[in-house]
Amino acid sequence: MTSSDQPIQIVALSKTFDLAQVFAPGDDQAVRVLRPHEVSDPRKIEVALAWRPEDVAFDAYPNLKMVSSIAAGVDSILACPSLRQDTVVTRVRDHSQADLMAGFAAFQVIWHHRRMGDYIANQARHVWDRSFRPQAPGSVTVGVLGYGLMGKKCAMAIAAMGFRVVVARNSAPAASEIVPDGIEIVAGPGAIQAVAAQADILVNILPLTDTTRDILDRDFFAQMRKGAALVQMARGEHMIEDDLLSALDSGRLSGASVDVFRQEPPAEDHPFWSHPNIMVTPHKASDTSPAEVLRQVLENFSALREGRIPPGLVNREAGY
Amino acid sequence: MTSSDQPIQIVALSKTFDLAQVFAPGDDQAVRVLRPHEVSDPRKIEVALAWRPEDVAFDAYPNLKMVSSIAAGVDSILACPSLRQDTVVTRVRDHSQADLMAGFAAFQVIWHHRRMGDYIANQARHVWDRSFRPQAPGSVTVGVLGYGLMGKKCAMAIAAMGFRVVVARNSAPAASEIVPDGIEIVAGPGAIQAVAAQADILVNILPLTDTTRDILDRDFFAQMRKGAALVQMARGEHMIEDDLLSALDSGRLSGASVDVFRQEPPAEDHPFWSHPNIMVTPHKASDTSPAEVLRQVLENFSALREGRIPPGLVNREAGY
Repeated sequence: MTSSDQPIQIVALSKTFDLAQVFAPGDDQAVRVLRPHEVSDPRKIEVALAWRPEDVAFDAYPNLKMVSSIAAGVDSILACPSLRQDTVVTRVRDHSQADLMAGFAAFQVIWHHRRMGDYIANQARHVWDRSFRPQAPGSVTVGVLGYGLMGKKCAMAIAAMGFRVVVARNSAPAASEIVPDGIEIVAGPGAIQAVAAQADILVNILPLTDTTRDILDRDFFAQMRKGAALVQMARGEHMIEDDLLSALDSGRLSGASVDVFRQEPPAEDHPFWSHPNIMVTPHKASDTSPAEVLRQVLENFSALREGRIPPGLVNREAGY
Repeated sequence: MTSSDQPIQIVALSKTFDLAQVFAPGDDQAVRVLRPHEVSDPRKIEVALAWRPEDVAFDAYPNLKMVSSIAAGVDSILACPSLRQDTVVTRVRDHSQADLMAGFAAFQVIWHHRRMGDYIANQARHVWDRSFRPQAPGSVTVGVLGYGLMGKKCAMAIAAMGFRVVVARNSAPAASEIVPDGIEIVAGPGAIQAVAAQADILVNILPLTDTTRDILDRDFFAQMRKGAALVQMARGEHMIEDDLLSALDSGRLSGASVDVFRQEPPAEDHPFWSHPNIMVTPHKASDTSPAEVLRQVLENFSALREGRIPPGLVNREAGY
């Protein structure tokens, strides 16, 4: 075990980001985040921070005990071939991040409900056009797919604006669970489709698992209400991007907000950029605070060393 | 008294809207909304629907008992020189309208907090730029001026996105009043300025009264935090428009969302249209349902005839 007087060495494993730069711990001497080539003795590495790691990323660290995602999603870590069965996987559960998600979801719901893009276009032409009348929020159903820390905050923020909110999640509420006012929960197999079928605006915040990969496809869109809008803020791999284009072009869907892509950044000629009914944002529905991520990594690792269950422990079977 | 078998005749008094068209009651035979020239006997008129009435608007109706605004605001009615002291003034308290307000306020808060306009500009250029890092919502103070039906819903929707919300209102909470989680109330004289001084984003939903007219002026902006943003969604007459321009151009304020103007529509060359840090919307923060307005007018008039206090009764002294 690492002595608590020595800084904990964390190796940063990502093929897309320089995590050691993003998560430089500043004045905190309790931890050092190292790039692989900065590690002098890989056998001393017990903790890794990872995001889209290389296939062989974990092979070099025979004594790795724990790997933490830098965010809520762990799909790229669980899918990594070199992840060993006995490595504990943790993730970050950041309330600020959930708040950011909730604000982003609320914004995108209003973007579609109120056709805010039309006002922006009208302002550019100095046009005062009051003709559009929004539906009363109470008669608009917003579906929310996913009800973890993120999904729950999103659902509550949307309900606070007066919308009818229907949530899809895996498990039914426990008898002791308080379901917030204005939110209905549909649980179990088929819940996602049942919620999607009644939503005027559908917000996707599902984790990426074998069950949810590619779920937003042609058949899925065909069962949505005509003229519904989609807010896709979970994972790019949830959606068949061409199928969204077809659903928009046929009028099945009226619009979409897309924050995540199968390939990020999307190509400069990706058709979403210039589609009039798609708002593109650069995977910024939320953002983690590096200091908070490191705090949670240390908290999880302390728990592990002391024989307690890390608060951010991932159920590898479930995938989140 | 009007017999309950006869349709109630309501005269529509406005110099800016054809209210009789907007509030045409459809198949409802209990009420008729008439333009002044359609009234055959003005002495039979007991109820008026008004919005920015002409100065002499009420003179023609000697038996007028009640005038209802078409919305929450009654400033243009109370200021009308021909309004008699014994005419009961009522307003509309529409929960759907408050929900619309709350959604609009939430949208505009996120617009400024997350710099959403930059993403829209980047999308137009096919640019994926993730560099902006928003502050954690919990460390951002959103001030809300006004805590009536509208202000409260707005404050709750903003709090649900994780922001610290501080509300300014006239009266302190009663001992029995439940102040929702995440909301602090500052009450009494000076409350507006105290809230404005600590807000990173300030939302104005005050009623227009003698006290609040012209309140958003140079001195007011000078006491706000440097770089704060303003969401002006109450009444155009609250703000000295030139002073907002100065505050933006000096960098005191970082941005503004302006839904209401001193003159509506604003002139085609009004400087707000093309200001890069102002989002202009055409007085659409909320919208009333005509059917709901008529329902409340009849409800208020029934109460009045039966000697009860109309639920939408305006305190003419207070101005709301």
